[in-house]
Amino acid sequence: MDVYSDKVTGAENQQERLIEFRGWVIGFVDGEGCFSIGFVRQPSRAERGGYKTGYQVTHEFVVTQGERSLSCLHELREFFGVGQVIINHRYDNHREHLHRYVVRRRADLLETIIPFFTRHPLRSSKQDDFEKFARCVDIIAGGSHKTPDGLIEIAEIAQTMNRRKPRHELIRILRGHTPDIQDTG
Amino acid sequence: MDVYSDKVTGAENQQERLIEFRGWVIGFVDGEGCFSIGFVRQPSRAERGGYKTGYQVTHEFVVTQGERSLSCLHELREFFGVGQVIINHRYDNHREHLHRYVVRRRADLLETIIPFFTRHPLRSSKQDDFEKFARCVDIIAGGSHKTPDGLIEIAEIAQTMNRRKPRHELIRILRGHTPDIQDTG
Repeated sequence: MDVYSDKVTGAENQQERLIEFRGWVIGFVDGEGCFSIGFVRQPSRAERGGYKTGYQVTHEFVVTQGERSLSCLHELREFFGVGQVIINHRYDNHREHLHRYVVRRRADLLETIIPFFTRHPLRSSKQDDFEKFARCVDIIAGGSHKTPDGLIEIAEIAQTMNRRKPRHELIRILRGHTPDIQDTG
Repeated sequence: MDVYSDKVTGAENQQERLIEFRGWVIGFVDGEGCFSIGFVRQPSRAERGGYKTGYQVTHEFVVTQGERSLSCLHELREFFGVGQVIINHRYDNHREHLHRYVVRRRADLLETIIPFFTRHPLRSSKQDDFEKFARCVDIIAGGSHKTPDGLIEIAEIAQTMNRRKPRHELIRILRGHTPDIQDTG
């Protein structure tokens, strides 16, 4: 084998490693990832444009691991080039601290995380959660979460994600807000 | 682009998909897989060659998923070509039945599962559990689990796997067996 074909093989191996690693990321997120939409009551900040409904909507992509697999989270951080690895200290009877790779910034979700999992779909039922998550982030990016109708739409999608219990109570409260907002809007 | 290069591209894409899928398997097992060694008390079968110590040692590789991700388990079954997908019916308040891809047959572990994860290591701390599992199956394949010393060696390795609590009690009992077995052997 001459030098040239050695180089080709080297490049092919490198390419193969990258493709296999991309597959690993998809599989690991299928197992350990979570796409979630949250609602934070912000009653005292209703004057701010983003919180006219009294709620802040949060979005995050998270992968959690114990201390011994912390390196996997740093590998994800390096692979995606966005987000951060943070620690959840545990002082109870658990054996190790938990670490989380977290991407919360909307631009990082819209430009990096969502396009990646759109091009490379998950194989488990988590793909369904991802699609709902992407739909919610899309609504938020369009600004509709600042209106009661948009917020209710997000809450109705979010209640079907991650095997959550239905959020009838939240949606009831949000619906209750609608007349007020329309009156004052 | 001519027909030939189209075919090359097709073959490359096929190859790429296989490599990516292999990566997915590794990542999914990093997240959801479990390599475990169990001890089943078999006091009434001590006459059988395999249970002279009074214990049967079991080994299994398992990946568990809810009903909605059952297809992933069938994909694993197809990929490895060994093992089976079985259902754990749940009639409690859980939302879906659990399914398990299980490989228990020693030859399947020795010829398929262990060689695969030896060539393609896991990236999480589960790799450590896998190596201990492979060591235990190796001891069992050599027949040493039929002796008290071999069984204690396996129990000592197994107690450090899967964040289990130490199995002092089992090892104490096994050690207690040693003189009897030596006396009668």
